[in-house]
Amino acid sequence: MYKQTCTNLLNLSKDEVKAWLDSFDSVITDCDGVLWVYGEPIAGSADAMNNLKTIGKSIYFCTNNSTKTRAELLKKGVDMGYHITENGIISTAHATAAYLKAHNFSKKVYVIGSEGITKELDAVGIAHTTVGPDQMHGSLGEFMSKHLVLEKDIGAVVVGFDEHFSFPKMTKAASYLSDPNCLFIATNTDERFPMPTLVVPGSGSFVRAIQTCAEREPIVIGKPNPAICAPLINQKIIDPSRTLMVGDRANTDVLLGYNCGFQTLLVGTGIHQLSDVAEWKQSKNPEDKKLIPDVYLPRLGDLLPFIVDKATGGSY
Amino acid sequence: MYKQTCTNLLNLSKDEVKAWLDSFDSVITDCDGVLWVYGEPIAGSADAMNNLKTIGKSIYFCTNNSTKTRAELLKKGVDMGYHITENGIISTAHATAAYLKAHNFSKKVYVIGSEGITKELDAVGIAHTTVGPDQMHGSLGEFMSKHLVLEKDIGAVVVGFDEHFSFPKMTKAASYLSDPNCLFIATNTDERFPMPTLVVPGSGSFVRAIQTCAEREPIVIGKPNPAICAPLINQKIIDPSRTLMVGDRANTDVLLGYNCGFQTLLVGTGIHQLSDVAEWKQSKNPEDKKLIPDVYLPRLGDLLPFIVDKATGGSY
Repeated sequence: MYKQTCTNLLNLSKDEVKAWLDSFDSVITDCDGVLWVYGEPIAGSADAMNNLKTIGKSIYFCTNNSTKTRAELLKKGVDMGYHITENGIISTAHATAAYLKAHNFSKKVYVIGSEGITKELDAVGIAHTTVGPDQMHGSLGEFMSKHLVLEKDIGAVVVGFDEHFSFPKMTKAASYLSDPNCLFIATNTDERFPMPTLVVPGSGSFVRAIQTCAEREPIVIGKPNPAICAPLINQKIIDPSRTLMVGDRANTDVLLGYNCGFQTLLVGTGIHQLSDVAEWKQSKNPEDKKLIPDVYLPRLGDLLPFIVDKATGGSY
Repeated sequence: MYKQTCTNLLNLSKDEVKAWLDSFDSVITDCDGVLWVYGEPIAGSADAMNNLKTIGKSIYFCTNNSTKTRAELLKKGVDMGYHITENGIISTAHATAAYLKAHNFSKKVYVIGSEGITKELDAVGIAHTTVGPDQMHGSLGEFMSKHLVLEKDIGAVVVGFDEHFSFPKMTKAASYLSDPNCLFIATNTDERFPMPTLVVPGSGSFVRAIQTCAEREPIVIGKPNPAICAPLINQKIIDPSRTLMVGDRANTDVLLGYNCGFQTLLVGTGIHQLSDVAEWKQSKNPEDKKLIPDVYLPRLGDLLPFIVDKATGGSY
């Protein structure tokens, strides 16, 4: 419904919103920018999601954050009052481990990332290197001749968010990837996290660095790659045409929805705003057109009155 | 002469090669892959260059290597037997300092790179941060709140080769670059240095990382950007149509020649070979066509008999 029209749900009648609510059974939502912002809850989001569950929708959280396991993301969600279970968490660290497992990967993974990834690899019995600092020692010549040790059984390089990203890690990753049989997997390609006075580099900037010196393209697991939702779709747990994707970032969330055939809802509590959508509507680039959501709300919490009204049959 | 035909000079008659030698007054040559390989001299190159100088050609060395000053590159050249002077050295570290000086830059430079850059900045009186290790301390939160200090007077971020590249450096660079008035300069974008069992990341991989998290495009000083030869051309020290560019790498050296209107000679002692040129000749991509050199030689030293023959009037 309202396919790529960016219809503001607040401009519709109650009956129209109710009809729209009936058009999907499953809701997949991004986390940061929709449910919370850097650990601070966004008012109304928990009530809206919990009430969507109450009226019978399946609920999934879908994040490109590779630093946490599903169990850790679950705890964060539950602590904030969301009625969610571990099966309802779709994360890139978990999806990366699931991808390797599904491909019967039996070698060792060189990990640029954090324990979010290594714990998920442990959970499926895949061997990996340790994460944490790997700092430069001595001159370039000394490093190359004395300190740089490559392991023989590495069959994949996985790159996620890593605050210990360094030249030695780049050299090792690019060297492993010179073997064309070594897999190159990026958890996600989010470029950065802008903060009031700072820009924190995102996984995408590490991935680009490795991609450049390795001269290879990675397999990207995270949004907007449908791979992250493949298990749900392939096992017919969700019906794409009756699934709603909620997000604040068009080039990950809305585009994932476009790529999977989901309905899409953009909320204005994060990265992209109606002004961005207006630009994409004017653009002559067909790629920009894919970013236009079906419907829009200023905040996810704005949906609450319609859901409660629907549940009670009126009089909210 | 022989414009973009990749004519093998060894297939021409002596008189034809002599006529070709008369078609240029200046010779700009790449270093690594033409004159030496990782510090090992390539046989015949020094004799060929020195004899070109003897028959009256102006000689310039042009390297994207940002880790050395002009003085250091001069010493390396002289130690290998080249008859060259400091004015004959064109390097990205020097060119970066010259670019900033020419633009009356009066603030401070945040340098990701080595002393090759900072010494050249010192030489023109431009303030800069120190180079060397800047390692991650503690957790991401601790780093952000306690260790990360941004300076107030940074007006440019310069990115070159830096074996101490790290997450703190990326965060600082991207944060400085969130000010649109802060210049973003890359010494060069060479992707990597492949070695027998290793891949060493090049400046281009650091530049890509910063470019991604800063969401900005850099000004690239190095080859193939004509900026690196702009002083020679603008001050009419060389006449582009009577200048020969010699190189082993088409997407830096030959493309620089194309961009500057120089004649071009590809040698087979480095990255690109005749088989690559054959592919570009077949390609339908107009960008590939720019990579086809005018003439080709297996080694620069193959030119020696023709120069000496020309100098002596025959009987070499």
